Amino acid sequence: MARDAGGSSSRRLQESHLHATWLQQSGFPDGAAAAIAATAAGFDRMWAALEPLGRHPRTGGYRRYAWTRDDALLREWFAGEAAARGLDLVDDRAGNLWAWWGDPDAHGPGVVVGSHLDSVPDGGAFDGPLGVVSALAAVDALRARGICPSRPLGVAVFADEEGARFGVACAGSRLLTGALPPDRARGLTDRDGITLADALAAAGREPGHLGRDDETLARVGTFVELHVEQGRALSAGDGGPPVAVGTGIWPHGRWRIDLPGEANHAGTTALADRHDPMVTFARTALAARDAALRHGALATCGKVTVAPNGVNAVPSLVTAWLDARAPRVAAARAVVDEVTAVAAADGGSVTEESWTDATAFDSGLVDRLAALLGPPGEPAPRLATGAGHDAGVLAAAGVPAAMLFVRNPTGISHSPAEHAERDDCLAGVAALATVVAELAS
Amino acid sequence: MARDAGGSSSRRLQESHLHATWLQQSGFPDGAAAAIAATAAGFDRMWAALEPLGRHPRTGGYRRYAWTRDDALLREWFAGEAAARGLDLVDDRAGNLWAWWGDPDAHGPGVVVGSHLDSVPDGGAFDGPLGVVSALAAVDALRARGICPSRPLGVAVFADEEGARFGVACAGSRLLTGALPPDRARGLTDRDGITLADALAAAGREPGHLGRDDETLARVGTFVELHVEQGRALSAGDGGPPVAVGTGIWPHGRWRIDLPGEANHAGTTALADRHDPMVTFARTALAARDAALRHGALATCGKVTVAPNGVNAVPSLVTAWLDARAPRVAAARAVVDEVTAVAAADGGSVTEESWTDATAFDSGLVDRLAALLGPPGEPAPRLATGAGHDAGVLAAAGVPAAMLFVRNPTGISHSPAEHAERDDCLAGVAALATVVAELAS
Repeated sequence: MARDAGGSSSRRLQESHLHATWLQQSGFPDGAAAAIAATAAGFDRMWAALEPLGRHPRTGGYRRYAWTRDDALLREWFAGEAAARGLDLVDDRAGNLWAWWGDPDAHGPGVVVGSHLDSVPDGGAFDGPLGVVSALAAVDALRARGICPSRPLGVAVFADEEGARFGVACAGSRLLTGALPPDRARGLTDRDGITLADALAAAGREPGHLGRDDETLARVGTFVELHVEQGRALSAGDGGPPVAVGTGIWPHGRWRIDLPGEANHAGTTALADRHDPMVTFARTALAARDAALRHGALATCGKVTVAPNGVNAVPSLVTAWLDARAPRVAAARAVVDEVTAVAAADGGSVTEESWTDATAFDSGLVDRLAALLGPPGEPAPRLATGAGHDAGVLAAAGVPAAMLFVRNPTGISHSPAEHAERDDCLAGVAALATVVAELAS
Repeated sequence: MARDAGGSSSRRLQESHLHATWLQQSGFPDGAAAAIAATAAGFDRMWAALEPLGRHPRTGGYRRYAWTRDDALLREWFAGEAAARGLDLVDDRAGNLWAWWGDPDAHGPGVVVGSHLDSVPDGGAFDGPLGVVSALAAVDALRARGICPSRPLGVAVFADEEGARFGVACAGSRLLTGALPPDRARGLTDRDGITLADALAAAGREPGHLGRDDETLARVGTFVELHVEQGRALSAGDGGPPVAVGTGIWPHGRWRIDLPGEANHAGTTALADRHDPMVTFARTALAARDAALRHGALATCGKVTVAPNGVNAVPSLVTAWLDARAPRVAAARAVVDEVTAVAAADGGSVTEESWTDATAFDSGLVDRLAALLGPPGEPAPRLATGAGHDAGVLAAAGVPAAMLFVRNPTGISHSPAEHAERDDCLAGVAALATVVAELAS
């Protein structure tokens, strides 16, 4: 985050006309800006504490993978923040963390806010952590204003949202809702061949506990996930609102493309004698791009592994992954079909690793949030996204859920360059506090 | 190697009519076959000792990389074999090993045979080790026949021939001859960012000692490297000779292709907003294949690394390597030029990591070996190869050098499936013993 040396939080907030205006418009009574400003110091402190954890010294990107040492440090950090606020920390069968203000078992299902702390390889600082830090800061904001919610309020940290290590995104929320069968989860392997079961055991957890967790789910009356925007919709104009309400998630999935070949010497094997899977991969990747353009979809080959990956060796195997998404299911499926045909022509195969249908967030909740966060008669903007989120998994399982998106000036995401301005982040905290104050009252 | 359970070495040799015939034709006097057969047990013993070293349990391929623990075990194995034969083991400034029978400093330059023990990633058992084991077995064969060469005889093991770890093939022989400047060598890095200098230090060597080693070179009067064939020329007909004489090495090189992009979220970034280097890589790899077909060359993209290599992340950087070779320099250069144009169109760059001009082995030596190994009036077959070898590096430095190739039934190389029949390997030992007996007498 950009910071002015020596600028106090409250002064900076007052200096930001846009921010102050939006704060007033967002449902806080006049004068509440000072209470929110007091929470900005807490936000900065939490942000600074998270900054070094799992950051790669060379790339500056984050490598916060599930059930690693860095993951444990992040969980410890969250436990410390929960304890400092007197929240009751519990985990569930999938390893998701829940910090409760109030008892959801005694006082009915609660309002839950939160996100995740893990990252893609060399990811940015905001994707995930912004939602967790903002949730904790929203608790602080409520307390600074003396608000005690009548419904229990939970702050959630979902495990392994990115799926960077074991290949299944939103693994924690999918296990929680039963969308990911525990047997399949336990057998997932990372790049070193370590199973999720072994990784859980190494992290001190019992792999046998994995499974749908209705007891935990029953505590969640409403879930709102705040997230940095992963596109430029909120940055399109000048001076527009810094926070939008998420309406839903495109259908999306990931597929593994296995392209077997015949290992051979690059310097002695005639081209006609080769079965070179790198050539097949190249055709497949271009087919994915071409099909996505024609079908109005997104298609990406962002990950590839090569065996043996030697400069002078025709590969024996290329494994690539396809990420495909589209506003409509048919478009995403058409891309996958075309890619499959190209891979199969050279003896390859395509396996679906995950698929998520279109998810629409609870329309009543979306309307309520949009009305709450915009000025009177002018609801906050609404955005659909191509990115999967735990909020989408919970929504698909029947939990009333929605999202808030915080402006991203470049739209860059899943990159060390991912960014949100500090004022926009604090506006996100204010919005989340407004939402929680309303929903939990 | 295929083995018959319970079949003794000598019986199997006698059963092989082709082999016995060829042994007689290859210059050994009648009756010498029994002496050679006695060395087969030694060959088998050495082969069995090498078999587990550096073998990956899952792939069955070898991962014998320079200056690793496995490399140290292979060097220890060679030192033990040298000691068992009373050979004087010395190393040179580059870390190549030389086991001498007779003193090359006192009695003029010697005849050297040998090869290397390192491998490509998941390489086969034969590429390299067959030449070293055959050289030691040839010493045994000479001794079994009571031959004491009048010139010193050396068995060489060259360091890091494949360049699998630090990216420069024939690093040991290139350092020896000065073709690889020591400053550049010390700065080479492996995939973990470890420099060759650090790797040498970790292996107990002094990195400052690297450099052209004229004292060692002066000991080498002639070098003959036996190697498994890496194509199918000797397998084309039925019953042809199992050993050929190498005539030279095609011009060849390797290039690093750096394709920078902009990391971004695969699910939210519009195709038009992307700078996706995986797409550029796909175009580049297909351009390499297409150019090679048109120019009568070989081109391979066998290695690629992707950052961050996440399924749902547009890569920030794809680095690929091009291996290009051709009978003529112009053809190889044309391939590289076309690949460079495609990469540069998307902001990529191509850097030459190594280049070796066409190498012709000493024509007098080649003629002499071919005549020696074929039946009267019918010289052994001759082969040029697209693969680089230490023999080529020495030849380029003015050392009279040549190679022997042992039949490879499938032509597969740089793969766990690489193979040579045991009888053909023993025919190679016989041929090498014949050559040494002639050259060193």
